[in-house]
Amino acid sequence: MTKSSAPCNQHFVLASRPQGEVKPTDFNLVDRPMPQPGKGEVLVETTYLAVEPAMRGWMEDRESYVPPVKIGELMRGQGTGVVIESDNPALPVGTAVSGMIGWRRYLVSDGRNTPLQKLPEATVPATALNVLGLTGLTAWFGMLDVGVPKKDDTVLVSGAAGATGSVAGQLARIAGARVIGIAGGKDKCAWLTQELGFDAAIDYKSEDTAGRVAALCPGGIDVYFDNVGGEILDIALDNLAMHARIALCGGISRYNESGPLPGPVNYFNLIYKRSRMEGFLVMDYAKRFPEAITGLVQYLESGELRHRETVFDGFEQMPDALINLFRGGNIGKQLVAVKP
Amino acid sequence: MTKSSAPCNQHFVLASRPQGEVKPTDFNLVDRPMPQPGKGEVLVETTYLAVEPAMRGWMEDRESYVPPVKIGELMRGQGTGVVIESDNPALPVGTAVSGMIGWRRYLVSDGRNTPLQKLPEATVPATALNVLGLTGLTAWFGMLDVGVPKKDDTVLVSGAAGATGSVAGQLARIAGARVIGIAGGKDKCAWLTQELGFDAAIDYKSEDTAGRVAALCPGGIDVYFDNVGGEILDIALDNLAMHARIALCGGISRYNESGPLPGPVNYFNLIYKRSRMEGFLVMDYAKRFPEAITGLVQYLESGELRHRETVFDGFEQMPDALINLFRGGNIGKQLVAVKP
Repeated sequence: MTKSSAPCNQHFVLASRPQGEVKPTDFNLVDRPMPQPGKGEVLVETTYLAVEPAMRGWMEDRESYVPPVKIGELMRGQGTGVVIESDNPALPVGTAVSGMIGWRRYLVSDGRNTPLQKLPEATVPATALNVLGLTGLTAWFGMLDVGVPKKDDTVLVSGAAGATGSVAGQLARIAGARVIGIAGGKDKCAWLTQELGFDAAIDYKSEDTAGRVAALCPGGIDVYFDNVGGEILDIALDNLAMHARIALCGGISRYNESGPLPGPVNYFNLIYKRSRMEGFLVMDYAKRFPEAITGLVQYLESGELRHRETVFDGFEQMPDALINLFRGGNIGKQLVAVKP
Repeated sequence: MTKSSAPCNQHFVLASRPQGEVKPTDFNLVDRPMPQPGKGEVLVETTYLAVEPAMRGWMEDRESYVPPVKIGELMRGQGTGVVIESDNPALPVGTAVSGMIGWRRYLVSDGRNTPLQKLPEATVPATALNVLGLTGLTAWFGMLDVGVPKKDDTVLVSGAAGATGSVAGQLARIAGARVIGIAGGKDKCAWLTQELGFDAAIDYKSEDTAGRVAALCPGGIDVYFDNVGGEILDIALDNLAMHARIALCGGISRYNESGPLPGPVNYFNLIYKRSRMEGFLVMDYAKRFPEAITGLVQYLESGELRHRETVFDGFEQMPDALINLFRGGNIGKQLVAVKP
């Protein structure tokens, strides 16, 4: 490959800190020189990129569990790719990899400076970024280690038709719990009950969520897996069973809001119901990823665990994919196929 | 004892549901017939009665972990007494007892319908209602089982000069933690640091609490034992260390407020700091009370654990004692000596 025939190496960089909803103009699409792999390095061509609710936080100028993305800097994100040039025998040409590639078409890595994981032959990129990626791992540890559903427990999941929520709910079902999902729209709710084996689904856009939660959980909620925060967290707190566990995974209802947001009004019910509310981050469980992957692969192979992806075609759709996620347009994992 | 010479058996009954602060007129002092012990029963003369923040909740018409006290009904409360008539060989005349006596001068019990615990010879009533009563047990299980302080942890306690907070903080100190107490007033703060061995104390009435917490906890708070809720809970959430534990014991700042109160604005920090917030109630640990009492007695005897009582003289002072508690007038346990 000569320089003159080199494909364009586009990056999306952060153009501005979002105010309210993410807008396309919060990103700039820029051309960068095609990177040249040096000694021990590989050139990776991106195949799929994932978007996640957490990205909204990374775009803000606020220290959280990772540093913010700087203005003008490559947008951070998970992706898959394939090695197209290699000076690294551990990663020969044709190797499929995943990692924190960022929103770019190509990258050079020695496999460690930007850590790349080799994907098993049988793994398709969509699966690697969804149920066998950080998404599935988040559901695994959040539900099983923090939520700890037991047989016949009543488990409530918000954002249940999203990538993490859908896996979390199914893991609770596999553990023997009765699982109720909250999602926005009839299609999502139908997917939960008809394909994923949820016992019930609540369409928060058209139903009285508080009334339906109370009616569906007459004995209270034993585990609440929270992806949304806000009003639905308050409803969950209002309907706790004794010794309930709330696994705080995210709060997508909050991410596009600015200024101080109200906290959970009913938190005091944690005392009356001797319950706990606990936050977690999947990277804390890195040492235990192999055990979770083994379990997830087993459930995938047995057909007990299903997944779905909403795929936009074309690298230039990255901002729209993220916006779609915040508008709830996705069912399952929102991805972009970089080269349609 | 004949009826004509019988002492007056006064009761305090609930006169009205409190609006805002508890007022003396929320109670009625009424004369009730002197109870006569029947077969297998004892007559107990009350010696001390305790008041607790939780009483504010019991006075409201709202189901929580115990039913509300009804209007016109005897006010619920812990106390100690002495058996003055007995037809029960297990509880001979002169036996000192404790239990949920209620705000009354005399009661009749067979020892089970109103459960009475015999006090060991060496136990003074004040201790039985404080560090060796439900107060000390609340501190024990809340701090050691929910907070779980480890050596060199930084532990923050609010309401630290109150009965539960002062014991909880000392138990954390005994566990090897660095302990910071928040209390209202210089006298309380001096008691914490000069007598109870707290490493530091913050006077929330005269100091910038947020600034002082941040300065005293540069590595963050590992355990926060919350007796107050409100703004101080938010400050604690804003200063969590990684994997912190918040033990929710109470929320005295909330009890005199009406209508929906703001929840903890910074609850989302539980995710960033992979932390948990957990409510508990001491009665859930009833089976383990003996182990806690053994531990508390041992620390009392070694002098590692100290306690203090604020005692009002005279049964008629019960409402004022409760009001004093909510105004922060007490150091340690607020009691009333029924017969001064």
